[in-house]
Amino acid sequence: MVHTTALPRNETGIETVLGILKQRFGEKFQTGQSIREQHGHTTTWIVNQAPDGVVYPQDTDDVSQIVRICAAHKVPVIPFGTGTSLEGHVNAPAGGISVDLSEMNRILAVHAEDLDVVVQPGVTREDLNTHLRDRGLFFPIDPGANASIGGMAATRASGTNAVRYGTMKDNVIGLEVVTADGTVMRTANRAKKSSAGYDLTRLMVGSEGTLGLITEITLRLQGIPEAISAARCSFPSVDAACQATMMAIQYGLPVARIELLDVLSVRAINTYSKLDLPEEPLLLLEFHGSEASVAEQAETFRAIVEEVGGSGYRAAATTEERNRLWQARHDAYWAMQTLRPGTQAFATDVCVPISRLAECVTASQAKLAELELIGPIAGHVGDGNFHTALLVDMDDAQERARADAFTGWLADLAISMDGTCTGEHGIGQGKMPYLEKELGPATVTMRAIKRAMDPHNILNPGKIVAV
Amino acid sequence: MVHTTALPRNETGIETVLGILKQRFGEKFQTGQSIREQHGHTTTWIVNQAPDGVVYPQDTDDVSQIVRICAAHKVPVIPFGTGTSLEGHVNAPAGGISVDLSEMNRILAVHAEDLDVVVQPGVTREDLNTHLRDRGLFFPIDPGANASIGGMAATRASGTNAVRYGTMKDNVIGLEVVTADGTVMRTANRAKKSSAGYDLTRLMVGSEGTLGLITEITLRLQGIPEAISAARCSFPSVDAACQATMMAIQYGLPVARIELLDVLSVRAINTYSKLDLPEEPLLLLEFHGSEASVAEQAETFRAIVEEVGGSGYRAAATTEERNRLWQARHDAYWAMQTLRPGTQAFATDVCVPISRLAECVTASQAKLAELELIGPIAGHVGDGNFHTALLVDMDDAQERARADAFTGWLADLAISMDGTCTGEHGIGQGKMPYLEKELGPATVTMRAIKRAMDPHNILNPGKIVAV
Repeated sequence: MVHTTALPRNETGIETVLGILKQRFGEKFQTGQSIREQHGHTTTWIVNQAPDGVVYPQDTDDVSQIVRICAAHKVPVIPFGTGTSLEGHVNAPAGGISVDLSEMNRILAVHAEDLDVVVQPGVTREDLNTHLRDRGLFFPIDPGANASIGGMAATRASGTNAVRYGTMKDNVIGLEVVTADGTVMRTANRAKKSSAGYDLTRLMVGSEGTLGLITEITLRLQGIPEAISAARCSFPSVDAACQATMMAIQYGLPVARIELLDVLSVRAINTYSKLDLPEEPLLLLEFHGSEASVAEQAETFRAIVEEVGGSGYRAAATTEERNRLWQARHDAYWAMQTLRPGTQAFATDVCVPISRLAECVTASQAKLAELELIGPIAGHVGDGNFHTALLVDMDDAQERARADAFTGWLADLAISMDGTCTGEHGIGQGKMPYLEKELGPATVTMRAIKRAMDPHNILNPGKIVAV
Repeated sequence: MVHTTALPRNETGIETVLGILKQRFGEKFQTGQSIREQHGHTTTWIVNQAPDGVVYPQDTDDVSQIVRICAAHKVPVIPFGTGTSLEGHVNAPAGGISVDLSEMNRILAVHAEDLDVVVQPGVTREDLNTHLRDRGLFFPIDPGANASIGGMAATRASGTNAVRYGTMKDNVIGLEVVTADGTVMRTANRAKKSSAGYDLTRLMVGSEGTLGLITEITLRLQGIPEAISAARCSFPSVDAACQATMMAIQYGLPVARIELLDVLSVRAINTYSKLDLPEEPLLLLEFHGSEASVAEQAETFRAIVEEVGGSGYRAAATTEERNRLWQARHDAYWAMQTLRPGTQAFATDVCVPISRLAECVTASQAKLAELELIGPIAGHVGDGNFHTALLVDMDDAQERARADAFTGWLADLAISMDGTCTGEHGIGQGKMPYLEKELGPATVTMRAIKRAMDPHNILNPGKIVAV
């Protein structure tokens, strides 16, 4: 486990707030140990730091009241979506109140003509897409987990479709936010673009609950494409797969998904998802568009594959086959863990300019071998973003130390390549030292903003930048 | 003329700084009246408020030194690109130093493999595209004017291509910024996406020089499409043209440009650019992609045109014809002024959800008639963004008052439609009251950020939010 420092607790304030919330929210406020621990849990090996209580607001006014109560007594407020974050984002190092937004899960308005939707933060992306399907619309961002839209906005999530549709920063039109003093503000109206003042929408997206609590999100939608096709192909090396990816991007191919799995990952999903993919570096692709355009895209990519010496290009013949491939990709995280039962997986998350991707992946594989670590690699390579799932025996202190060393080494490597220590998971607690390395002087400005927007440091303290 | 309030001047500080800059920058520091007035000038009717001196830094270190000198004496610093902004952005209401970045005009690195480029702020978009052409690359954002990239980033510019390629917020990867105390910070590395901390890139984009001076910009590039085709078609009403636009967007047609000109605008460009377009509401379009894709897009749009009763769909037969059409569109601002010689044009800039566009444009035309104003309309309608060029006899106080009334009425209408008072021109001095109306409580947070990042209010004071 990675132990992060506990911060000083305001015991008197916490005690007072627990009493007020109990009285005000009744059954919608819980302090049982198991519920509290669930709310400190993230899909991570960072040690659990449970909040003192969990409250389930029903609307924005509830959230505003909760924040006002906590602000009056200087008690931390930690927003919680579905708990699928990876860097200790929902931990409570100074105690305080977890604000579980899962019951604020209404889809407030679908504006089909404007291709946008207004949702509460607890709506999950799967629920949203189920709701939209009959309208011929979809929300493209897919981080793998069935995360909440609020959590996805708060961590600037992305995933497999980002190469074509962008990340949350590109797909959030505007937000309703409760600020540190309980004020409710809107960051933007529904216009598709705006030059009206500071871009608070983008400042809030990725702020991980440290600058305000997101209570409503207006999202851009896409029409479901006329045609969707998927394909896979194998490559003699990770380098060749990365070359093919780079050529596709340079060519301007509007590929909707282009995912790399290394040999170890392919082996894992073959076993877990009962597939028989060749055990070579693999690209999984998806093309969206008109029938003609999708066919043309596939043909173009096939030519690229041949040019770099790839083989076994195969289009998914049926929707079922396509879904099976992508389900396997989505399950890769779980599949990887079966490679070495009894271990815990810890996902790295670097993103580099695509010209450096092959070098970064290849160097990572060599470093893993050197450190005698098992770490299958999968990546959203069209964006230069990849994950190593380190499979670590948590009882082996030396191995944990080597995994830590690898994580730090990889972050340094990515930064030295003009890349980032996190493409999509965020900083949370786990990546704070790397953020300093990556952006140095900019973290001074980040701290100044944090202090200005949260003068008593009650909003998810101990994350992103320490103040 | 619109007179904006002059702010208190720090005469002692200004006097001191003038002396220091003269000594430090020699010929690169100018205080002649005509140069100073040029640097207060914008394409606007807001009254000129000239700075006390104009300095021409040669590199980031110069900018940092200038800011340090001004910070030490609490003297305003106003960044200047090409002076094509429209809302008094470069005015100096409290005096101070205009930092003319036009001599920082080097293209520092083209990363063709990564589809990005690193430029200094004084590079103009036309110079950039000329430089990129041989590499088969282009930078898509086109606000009409040959603006500087720094200015475009600072005002979150967009223009005709935004419907497909987004605005500056979508196309700036990272920035180098000199902050209020002269510190040089980078907001992001070159990775295509990142979740590393607060999105300072997007906070700076559109901050109009009020939070820092942009000294370097990393931009996303596009490959020049294999095929580009343009088309035009006429409609019986603005409403029908907007319907066609909305249908194209809903259909997911990846149109690169879709521009509306109303009857008055068509008449103006017919005269100015010697064209013979039918004097009806007109859409100008451009399609980018492969040969097959472009043909398919055009065919799809043609079907939409027929469905809404449009006529005279005509593809530009040659590159020359295409360029002529787009040159005419670019010259529309000048063409419009010839409709009523001796007047000054004043461009409004609202942006509304596309479902409200037809209603907003039609209501604007009715209001113009009611107020006896002449205001041709042209718009980036794929984004729901349009401009009315009010042609105002500046000697007629009553007419000026009616133009003012129209501008306020239109901003209110757009806001009531869940839109914005500015799609792309920015707030500057001219739109400050509308920003308050539009985002209310959010402006409190904007002020807090401004104070945190610029505690002595020296960075382009009196713009966006008053502090």
